[in-house]
Amino acid sequence: MKILNKIRGPKDIKRLRLPQLEQLCAEIRAFLVKTVSDTGGHLASNLGVVELTVAIHKVFDSPNDKIIWDVGHQCYTHKIITGRLKDFHTLRQEGGVSGFPRASESRHDSFVAGHASTSISAACGLCTANMLAGKNDHVIAVIGDGSFTGGMAYEALNNAGSLENFVVILNHNQMSISKNVGTFARYLASLRSKPVYVKFKSMVDDTMENIPLVGKNLKRAVWNSKSAFKNMVFRSNFFTDLGFAYYGPSDGHSLEELINVLERAKHTKQPVFLHVDTVKGKGYTHAEENPGAFHGVASFDVETGNPDIAEEDSFSSVFGKVLTELATKDRKICAVTAAMKYGTGLQKFAKIHRDRFFDVGIAEPHAVTFSAALAAGGFVPVFAVYSTFLQRSIDQVIHDAAIENRHIVLAVDRAGFVSNDGETHQGIFDVALLSAIPNVTIYSPANYKELERCLVKAIYHTDGIAAVRYPRGNEDSSFPACNKDYSYIYDRPEDAMIDMNTLVITYGRTAINAANAVKYLRDEGLGIGLLKLCKIMPIPENAVRSALKYKNIIFFEEGSQKGGIGEHMLAELMAAGFGGYYKITAVNSGFPPLASAESMLSKYGLDSESMKLTILEILHDEQTS
Amino acid sequence: MKILNKIRGPKDIKRLRLPQLEQLCAEIRAFLVKTVSDTGGHLASNLGVVELTVAIHKVFDSPNDKIIWDVGHQCYTHKIITGRLKDFHTLRQEGGVSGFPRASESRHDSFVAGHASTSISAACGLCTANMLAGKNDHVIAVIGDGSFTGGMAYEALNNAGSLENFVVILNHNQMSISKNVGTFARYLASLRSKPVYVKFKSMVDDTMENIPLVGKNLKRAVWNSKSAFKNMVFRSNFFTDLGFAYYGPSDGHSLEELINVLERAKHTKQPVFLHVDTVKGKGYTHAEENPGAFHGVASFDVETGNPDIAEEDSFSSVFGKVLTELATKDRKICAVTAAMKYGTGLQKFAKIHRDRFFDVGIAEPHAVTFSAALAAGGFVPVFAVYSTFLQRSIDQVIHDAAIENRHIVLAVDRAGFVSNDGETHQGIFDVALLSAIPNVTIYSPANYKELERCLVKAIYHTDGIAAVRYPRGNEDSSFPACNKDYSYIYDRPEDAMIDMNTLVITYGRTAINAANAVKYLRDEGLGIGLLKLCKIMPIPENAVRSALKYKNIIFFEEGSQKGGIGEHMLAELMAAGFGGYYKITAVNSGFPPLASAESMLSKYGLDSESMKLTILEILHDEQTS
Repeated sequence: MKILNKIRGPKDIKRLRLPQLEQLCAEIRAFLVKTVSDTGGHLASNLGVVELTVAIHKVFDSPNDKIIWDVGHQCYTHKIITGRLKDFHTLRQEGGVSGFPRASESRHDSFVAGHASTSISAACGLCTANMLAGKNDHVIAVIGDGSFTGGMAYEALNNAGSLENFVVILNHNQMSISKNVGTFARYLASLRSKPVYVKFKSMVDDTMENIPLVGKNLKRAVWNSKSAFKNMVFRSNFFTDLGFAYYGPSDGHSLEELINVLERAKHTKQPVFLHVDTVKGKGYTHAEENPGAFHGVASFDVETGNPDIAEEDSFSSVFGKVLTELATKDRKICAVTAAMKYGTGLQKFAKIHRDRFFDVGIAEPHAVTFSAALAAGGFVPVFAVYSTFLQRSIDQVIHDAAIENRHIVLAVDRAGFVSNDGETHQGIFDVALLSAIPNVTIYSPANYKELERCLVKAIYHTDGIAAVRYPRGNEDSSFPACNKDYSYIYDRPEDAMIDMNTLVITYGRTAINAANAVKYLRDEGLGIGLLKLCKIMPIPENAVRSALKYKNIIFFEEGSQKGGIGEHMLAELMAAGFGGYYKITAVNSGFPPLASAESMLSKYGLDSESMKLTILEILHDEQTS
Repeated sequence: MKILNKIRGPKDIKRLRLPQLEQLCAEIRAFLVKTVSDTGGHLASNLGVVELTVAIHKVFDSPNDKIIWDVGHQCYTHKIITGRLKDFHTLRQEGGVSGFPRASESRHDSFVAGHASTSISAACGLCTANMLAGKNDHVIAVIGDGSFTGGMAYEALNNAGSLENFVVILNHNQMSISKNVGTFARYLASLRSKPVYVKFKSMVDDTMENIPLVGKNLKRAVWNSKSAFKNMVFRSNFFTDLGFAYYGPSDGHSLEELINVLERAKHTKQPVFLHVDTVKGKGYTHAEENPGAFHGVASFDVETGNPDIAEEDSFSSVFGKVLTELATKDRKICAVTAAMKYGTGLQKFAKIHRDRFFDVGIAEPHAVTFSAALAAGGFVPVFAVYSTFLQRSIDQVIHDAAIENRHIVLAVDRAGFVSNDGETHQGIFDVALLSAIPNVTIYSPANYKELERCLVKAIYHTDGIAAVRYPRGNEDSSFPACNKDYSYIYDRPEDAMIDMNTLVITYGRTAINAANAVKYLRDEGLGIGLLKLCKIMPIPENAVRSALKYKNIIFFEEGSQKGGIGEHMLAELMAAGFGGYYKITAVNSGFPPLASAESMLSKYGLDSESMKLTILEILHDEQTS
């Protein structure tokens, strides 16, 4: 790490010559494998852009020139060489370096990114601001071919044709998290493997050269002309049609080639689309061979590439298993994913029910409308999607599914706090967003058994839109599964003697924490009930009715307070004549920053210790008031 | 109307020969101008697709074959010839024929559409369902070039390459509501005016033919080969690259040409992209000459094309005027619209501050991210957007603007009930969706003066995201403007004598109805206060504090109850120790169907008469309980 350790910022890159830069790339690559094997993180995508990142910083001048990393998880090298080497061992840890660009972390991170396909839009805005302010600084968006399955990329390209000092770099590795889907990927691959213009030119050349006498002159006449002919042949592809100068494909692991083409891009007057070929996982054999598995990883053994902890069941894998079984018996069931086959546990479904499995790319809006139309066509689509990405299809849920009351199932994974990814990936809004939409039923299972039951209810016993939401990770199996839409926990016979005046309500995984808190307090002789909701929207009428008899109600919710079930429940209770005390503990301001789920639960008062204290405080206030 | 009157369904079309079909088109066109001049509606887009619609029904077999109309406002001819001629005079009226396709209205309306760019997604889903079910029926999506500025269209195209019996028809009129924007429109226009392959072929032919001796042989060798050369030249454009067979451009007003090319499309094995040239407003001079003005119209005089009612100020026009003035003084202010320059009142801004006006096309997700980046670059973007279309950018508001707390202004037009467009256009979710997002401030002015004040506050005195929401149409000027974030109405000195125990709370235009109701009841001697919120999120603390002293609170809200301000206010009141009676009157189930805003206000208990009754009921219940 002789060179890397001396890099304090992009200016230090500019001083280095090619052999030193190559040495630097090797050092960065070794550092990435070593660090991410400890911390976990996005490995393969970062290994693919080491040379590209170094070349960009060599040619351009950050932070005056703005670099925007699509999805953001390709930004590790960028972070390392813009002053965050020293802290990089804190990657993805509370208070540490974020795995995504954060403007609040460094002035070299020009724009937040954790969701895909936004970089060209953001770059358009920054570039337009430059042009309005009379600045000549460059704006560079680096976007993977996977992100081109998202419609926003096209919306932005359509608006970029007249920008200046604007470079879009396609980081072309033929992957998103899993293998890329759709015909556009095929089109990009065709540009990559046999660039149209080269092939065409040599073919025409050959044909013409073989014409006796006039061949060479004809050739010259054709290619030297300023004719539409030449322009069409040489330049026409989708990106040139949209007003870009198209350069490439360039070898994304040749520093020399990259620096040359970036210099050329820098001095081009029109917007540039630079096509760069990279290998996801480059330089670390295990990741090159299996880039999907090394997309986002937990800590692993560098030698073998094996994860430090063996994989076990998770809500995602159980969902996938149950859905695959249901679909074996019922040929109406389809599975839809937006480029998250592995993340949502649908690998097996994809293999066994290949014709009913649809990976539509990073295209959540399309995924919902496509699902609604599958439903209109008589099938039962289950769209498995992370809570944070479902935010992208709210209008489609409203407009294309809810208005005509289409029966689609949303399997909302990563609902609630999400460990280690930070603000961009929290699953704290799905309940607020979905519960405002008519014709939506929401289930929130607390463990695997309930997940299975909710999925069956969603598919077979729910009209319209049925969402089943569950957290990232594993169940806490110490808690008994409930087989009803709501249930009272701890109504043992001996509890009947206790004069109950306080009720705790919650749903999802916080039910376990609430049960522990309530159990403790009841053992102390306090009259506290626990109502656990499983169907959270509409709130079961009987649950509302029986909650009415309590004097104090405390609602614990792992999600946004505004628009959450705590508020809806309160409104229903008041409409039914409730006159007691009501308190909601939920996320009520800002975005929970980078931390583990456990830490966030505790910070927001949702672990059992905090719950205990909250309940005791209320009882205390009541006695003293 | 000899022929039209005999058309009871698509089967009747199939029996007609070309001259009769041409006569039918003329009759339909005359009928459309006459009817829409009475009812108002989308005229220009419908006049453009008369022949296309008739040709589709001649060649395909609805409802077995599914026809999906993008945005839906081009479906009038389709409705007229699928059994809704008789009722067509009820267009856009309560209980009448919807201006958009509604599956619930007819089995010929295969899929709902009121928002743009969804048709290919929906067609993908229906076609996939056909394929899974082993059906050979066709699915046809008809989509305007305007809708190609929306990213969903690409997300769907990317997934359609391997479908069968699938036809996408580009209705190419070079307009969305106003003139189309972006480089993709330019690209489509280039396909239209001089089809690449034709031009290229003749150029190569000319070149080769002029070569002595070998010219003709060379030519034959080239074009007869199965080479990539020929394929590339003849077939390569964006749509063929995505796996479609590309036909056209065809004359969209020649029935014969359309029927022929549709027959060809019907028998093509791969998915077909059919490019059809149409003239928006075709056949009605006033609409042809000014298609923007005749996109959506109120009733008008057929002879002159003049609207029956003179245009007057509206919330939209006042917004546009105020923003234009502010931007004259402050060169940081930018305006952004998603193809709604006229609808949102930004025409004048666009003319005067041309460099700071951005019409990004029907691309709401991009519009928000672009705005957030303009803000990051030091400008103050104001994105003017209808409430219903803002639903499409919720993730961008969360992810690209709120997380980094970017200062952008959302001018949310058509907030609340929207007259005559029906379910797809109601503005009843913006408050629920936005208020769940951290770093968002929402203002809800009740009249023009307040709109101006809120806009200034949003631009100059608000951190992060500032939304200003206002209804479609005009103010009720009988109500005095308030210049505070909240205000108590009717605190005249003589009112101090009344023992106030009931408080009405509301915001926006319903404040006028509430004021009338409260005034009436106070004159009757009842102690009722009125709290009018202008800043609705965060709810002003003092407003919450002073509401605490009332025993009964009734919250009237023109929007979703779930996630609305009524629920948030209740939660805050309870947290502050409120122990009284609380009732919310808002939209609490389903989608308000097609009606006038007045009718919906009354139906949902939000006109002053209903408000009076609600208040009296509560007071009565209280006395008798």
